[in-house]
Amino acid sequence: MGNVTIGGDAPITVQSMTNTDTRNVAQTRAQINNLVKAGCEIIRVAVPDMEAAKALPQIKQGLGIPLVADIHFDYRLALASLEAGVEGLRINPGNIGGEDKVAAVVKEAKRKKVPIRIGVNAGSLEKDLAVGGAVTPEAMVQSALRHITMLEKMDFYDIKVSLKASDVPLMLEAYRLLAGRVDYPLHIGVTEAGTLFRGSIKSAVGIGILLWEGIGDTVRVSLTGDPVHEVSAAYEILKSLGLRQRGVEIISCPTCGRTQIDLITIAGEVEERLAALDEPLKVAVMGCVVNGPGEAKHADVGIAGGKGEGLIFRKGKVIRKVKEELLVEELIKEIDQIINGRNF
Amino acid sequence: MGNVTIGGDAPITVQSMTNTDTRNVAQTRAQINNLVKAGCEIIRVAVPDMEAAKALPQIKQGLGIPLVADIHFDYRLALASLEAGVEGLRINPGNIGGEDKVAAVVKEAKRKKVPIRIGVNAGSLEKDLAVGGAVTPEAMVQSALRHITMLEKMDFYDIKVSLKASDVPLMLEAYRLLAGRVDYPLHIGVTEAGTLFRGSIKSAVGIGILLWEGIGDTVRVSLTGDPVHEVSAAYEILKSLGLRQRGVEIISCPTCGRTQIDLITIAGEVEERLAALDEPLKVAVMGCVVNGPGEAKHADVGIAGGKGEGLIFRKGKVIRKVKEELLVEELIKEIDQIINGRNF
Repeated sequence: MGNVTIGGDAPITVQSMTNTDTRNVAQTRAQINNLVKAGCEIIRVAVPDMEAAKALPQIKQGLGIPLVADIHFDYRLALASLEAGVEGLRINPGNIGGEDKVAAVVKEAKRKKVPIRIGVNAGSLEKDLAVGGAVTPEAMVQSALRHITMLEKMDFYDIKVSLKASDVPLMLEAYRLLAGRVDYPLHIGVTEAGTLFRGSIKSAVGIGILLWEGIGDTVRVSLTGDPVHEVSAAYEILKSLGLRQRGVEIISCPTCGRTQIDLITIAGEVEERLAALDEPLKVAVMGCVVNGPGEAKHADVGIAGGKGEGLIFRKGKVIRKVKEELLVEELIKEIDQIINGRNF
Repeated sequence: MGNVTIGGDAPITVQSMTNTDTRNVAQTRAQINNLVKAGCEIIRVAVPDMEAAKALPQIKQGLGIPLVADIHFDYRLALASLEAGVEGLRINPGNIGGEDKVAAVVKEAKRKKVPIRIGVNAGSLEKDLAVGGAVTPEAMVQSALRHITMLEKMDFYDIKVSLKASDVPLMLEAYRLLAGRVDYPLHIGVTEAGTLFRGSIKSAVGIGILLWEGIGDTVRVSLTGDPVHEVSAAYEILKSLGLRQRGVEIISCPTCGRTQIDLITIAGEVEERLAALDEPLKVAVMGCVVNGPGEAKHADVGIAGGKGEGLIFRKGKVIRKVKEELLVEELIKEIDQIINGRNF
């Protein structure tokens, strides 16, 4: 899709969706800019009407990542978005009003080499598939297969599929079933996951389990909040399984009755100071000098707090002792040294 | 352990650890009190010296959940903690200085029916097991088996085991290996996971994957921060897999270009207003009136925002339309009604 490969051995990509009014070009561009800075690799915008479709060329201008148009029901919005040069479409072909309309969209998508994502959502499943109102994993897969078949019949195979639900076990089983039946790249996520704290945890459980099973090619975390957090959360999930690297990895102990310095504040400060640094570096922030350096010997660099003072260590080896109030500053200096050493 | 069953078909319990100075009884009791309110079911305190051990009887006074003493190296602290009436010990028998000392602790633990948790930590593995400094899942399991064997030889089987690492794939493989070899209940967690946001996500991935595979009997999320968040995060993980219920479940859509109300603020407000409510209730906060009620028809009650106004719905059926500024208030009223209807 555009300059990004999805599926196969390609890295698992991180995507997000704007929550601005797409017709407001300035706001939408500003939000996308923040998302790109946070590491967003594919961006989707809602295209609810023609005015939104007409804003797409301006939104695309100078954009370095693929732009996906999210469309419901109206095939003309899909055609207008393709005309505007989007790199991807999210549209369910079964819901746009008949074969001739699907054919018109598919023809243009094929000509422009634009993939289509089929986005099945447990909350809006076709009525004949939700038996007695209950949505099953199999019903979700059947819905996806209907849309897929429709595209395949038109000789279109440039397909991604998602099977989202807000219920984690439901989405897990649906993705597993589908992964066993088709070979298309899967866009994975938990929908309507909630606000920052709850939504990140729920997404981490659902997405984490799928990734660990080898399922999933591109990830979206859905949060009610600033979408920049969606990107950060997605990277934290991928990083925790060693699937992507981004930013510094900070490990910090939970503190306990043995801790004699204000580790919570120090860890927060270290995290903030290193937020913009995108280097493969493991930094430890540990509460006690007795166990700290040893327990964190796999870290490239770290600090361990004592009473009013602390140790700076590298790969478990203590380098020097500094006063508590200088700990963060000295740690940052040490990190600068490591990075300079790497680069020159 | 005390009044809590761990293992077998028992519910998966949520635990945490204080980060106060255990010798400071007032502070420690206050923190435990907050943790219990948040749903903490087992609480651990560090016992680094005799003064801390002597504070335990006062800390225990009137406490409704089991108290676990966390001890390193010194068997006398274990004896003093048992004497003080703790319901659990976390101590690695191989590290307390020889068989006679282990025997003394085991004899007392057996007499008082106090279980012992063996807590293997990747960061402090026995030197002969970490081949060339590298910690493998097998080495972690070997370490656990050594400690287990030591206790079993003394006819002690009241054992729990943990195999924590800050590296998620490492801890996943270690727990899996051990789960295939022993039948003891497992205490699961990712150690040194980090601060609130990152640490919760990393823990959700590690703990979520294990739970989904049927591994784990009691959970601790380790965060650098207020331990109350550890308890909330643990419940969010368990709830997302349908393993425990606590508090209201709020689902909220990620908002998009179609949203015409300030859903992020509204969702935050709803979450805050319902934070103290511990009822099995699914509440939806949706951005648009067209898809909202339908997509959230599995929710007991919800709101869907339009332009300056919104809908209140129950199980997908619209009940009434209200002004945006009254949405939260009216939702709370509706929830009160549902709960009153249940209770009377």
